[in-house]
Amino acid sequence: MKVYSEKIKTFYYLNPSLAALITCVDSHGYSNIITVAWHASISAYPPLYGVSISPKRHSHNLILDSGEFVVNFASFEILDKVHYCGKHSGRDVNKFEETGFTSTKATRVGAPLIQECYAHLECRLWDHRVYGDHLWFVGEVISVDYDEEALHPTGLLRIDEISPIYYLGSNTYTTIDKNRRVKL
Amino acid sequence: MKVYSEKIKTFYYLNPSLAALITCVDSHGYSNIITVAWHASISAYPPLYGVSISPKRHSHNLILDSGEFVVNFASFEILDKVHYCGKHSGRDVNKFEETGFTSTKATRVGAPLIQECYAHLECRLWDHRVYGDHLWFVGEVISVDYDEEALHPTGLLRIDEISPIYYLGSNTYTTIDKNRRVKL
Repeated sequence: MKVYSEKIKTFYYLNPSLAALITCVDSHGYSNIITVAWHASISAYPPLYGVSISPKRHSHNLILDSGEFVVNFASFEILDKVHYCGKHSGRDVNKFEETGFTSTKATRVGAPLIQECYAHLECRLWDHRVYGDHLWFVGEVISVDYDEEALHPTGLLRIDEISPIYYLGSNTYTTIDKNRRVKL
Repeated sequence: MKVYSEKIKTFYYLNPSLAALITCVDSHGYSNIITVAWHASISAYPPLYGVSISPKRHSHNLILDSGEFVVNFASFEILDKVHYCGKHSGRDVNKFEETGFTSTKATRVGAPLIQECYAHLECRLWDHRVYGDHLWFVGEVISVDYDEEALHPTGLLRIDEISPIYYLGSNTYTTIDKNRRVKL
């Protein structure tokens, strides 16, 4: 039976979304990590990627000030660390130190890559815009870095090797089912 | 081993994203459906949802002209129909007729709901903006409709009942793994 709601609580739990780790850096070279679920590819040429971040978050100003960020995609084996980065603020802790994540130099931007992630989009800030209670950061993807073993030669993710993390809401996660891959 | 790429082909296959069906309607009451993978929640208050659609697509002008759209979320059992709606144009075929999807009246907008989908976000166009080769449509979510059995009382999706569709690229899909749900 269909239920109708105009109160619209937690509409954003209806579409379990990939968790991603955004890295950024301040003018003193201090790096931060934030876990996000509200993000998407938005253009192929030029390659553009959008990420929605609340102004309350420490990374918000770091990205605005530095004009760049990296989108890191994680596999389920490091879920605990991904969750940690969504629950703590870079104002209080150094998330690279606390998680043990390895900070690796990016190719084209100052923000670091998280070595333990399977792929990374290095982004230069292209646009930013207030949408409601979040800021929509649009980055031009100027370099892509990935683990060679994570991808098929066609560019598709090897889900026999990589288990991307999906956020169901309320601190609950899952991954994709590697046995139900269908090509139509 | 990390590989670096500045050619940046198919960066959008690195993050398998939920497939969604966007419905819209023209001034004659003729409805269309388009399958998208580039979309995200972007604000909680007000509730805003963004969808990236190429200007080449038939739905692009329908949404601009009507100022509204519905985001429908589908389960894996109807994957064939979801795929069909991504591969054909509403200029050539009536996708409701071809798929057999049931068109249901929405609560607050003229665009229809797809009855066979487990949840629906009725959106009024809030903003639109060219980002590269796509248009970014931002909708205010003014009503949410969902199958009662699709959600836990907490608002979380019942992944024992519902298997959302994820697009891996190149006509390849999968769903989430209901046996690896973890609450941290």
